Amino acid sequence: MSNSFKFTKPEWELLKDKKLFETPIFSLHQLELNPARQQSLHPYYVLKAPEWINMFPLTKDNEIVLVEQYRVGVDQTTLELPGGMVDAGESPLEAAKRELLEETGYKSNEWELIGKTSSNPAILNNFTHLYVAKDCTYTGSNNPDGSEDIKVHKMPLNDFLDLVRDGTVHHAIVLAAVAQFLLNERSE
Amino acid sequence: MSNSFKFTKPEWELLKDKKLFETPIFSLHQLELNPARQQSLHPYYVLKAPEWINMFPLTKDNEIVLVEQYRVGVDQTTLELPGGMVDAGESPLEAAKRELLEETGYKSNEWELIGKTSSNPAILNNFTHLYVAKDCTYTGSNNPDGSEDIKVHKMPLNDFLDLVRDGTVHHAIVLAAVAQFLLNERSE
Repeated sequence: MSNSFKFTKPEWELLKDKKLFETPIFSLHQLELNPARQQSLHPYYVLKAPEWINMFPLTKDNEIVLVEQYRVGVDQTTLELPGGMVDAGESPLEAAKRELLEETGYKSNEWELIGKTSSNPAILNNFTHLYVAKDCTYTGSNNPDGSEDIKVHKMPLNDFLDLVRDGTVHHAIVLAAVAQFLLNERSE
Repeated sequence: MSNSFKFTKPEWELLKDKKLFETPIFSLHQLELNPARQQSLHPYYVLKAPEWINMFPLTKDNEIVLVEQYRVGVDQTTLELPGGMVDAGESPLEAAKRELLEETGYKSNEWELIGKTSSNPAILNNFTHLYVAKDCTYTGSNNPDGSEDIKVHKMPLNDFLDLVRDGTVHHAIVLAAVAQFLLNERSE
């Protein structure tokens, strides 16, 4: 394990938190912070969202299960690790198992947490929990949400890493999981 | 290079785009998409923002230059690669050079684009351009924005990778750059 890093204690103090807008995915808040540290005196805007999860679903043959779906933010079809939102009352691991089954029809009995990434610490309050699911098997059918229109793909793990390298797979939180997966591999 | 992946042509069609709110970092938009593909008929919310950049600033001794700063989204002080927003009229590379100098006081004449990641394709329209800046040298002073309160750190590259591995460094877009850096290394 690494040398530890000592963070400076933040001296910012929250004075006001006003919810401006709510969507099914996040709510938009306007914050006022302690003016002693806020030299430019402008308000700050953050999104609040539940925790998210994604996972490397690997079969016993070291193939990875991926999802292709339309993403409205970039107005493109993307290729990604399966993932989603942790529902109320769920643990991140329960959400990961549910999302894998719903989106791909695959399940696993061998889950490992490989890291936790802040989805975007500048504007989002939440973290994404990153898993590897080994020995995944197909249950026979998937069952995505009504708003999801998902195609499932399976390919050798190294082909997936090539698609990350060449930019075909480009979702930042998917790449965050790739970083933890590769660092995990290096330390083994 | 990898096998190519053939994406399905997205059949979603944008019907309406209404800006709900504007902040200095992003604007919030409500979209209506082609109902033929939008089975649940709810509106979609996306954030529009300029392109972002970050970079691995490496010295000739293979040390990396990092920034510690308060991040309002997670209400924590974080340790990150330097980075920021591409200003109007700037190229991503120009922004990277400017941000490195402003945030850390370091500069480099040897820049390489190692990838481009969608900052969050589900809710954000923009991409983050990921660079390596080699042979960085200190100019004598940094000059962060008024709203930034940045501490600069320098450490061996491997110590930084250890801090990513153990979760001390956790920003998703920083980890995305780590993924491309490691994949780049593997393919060399």
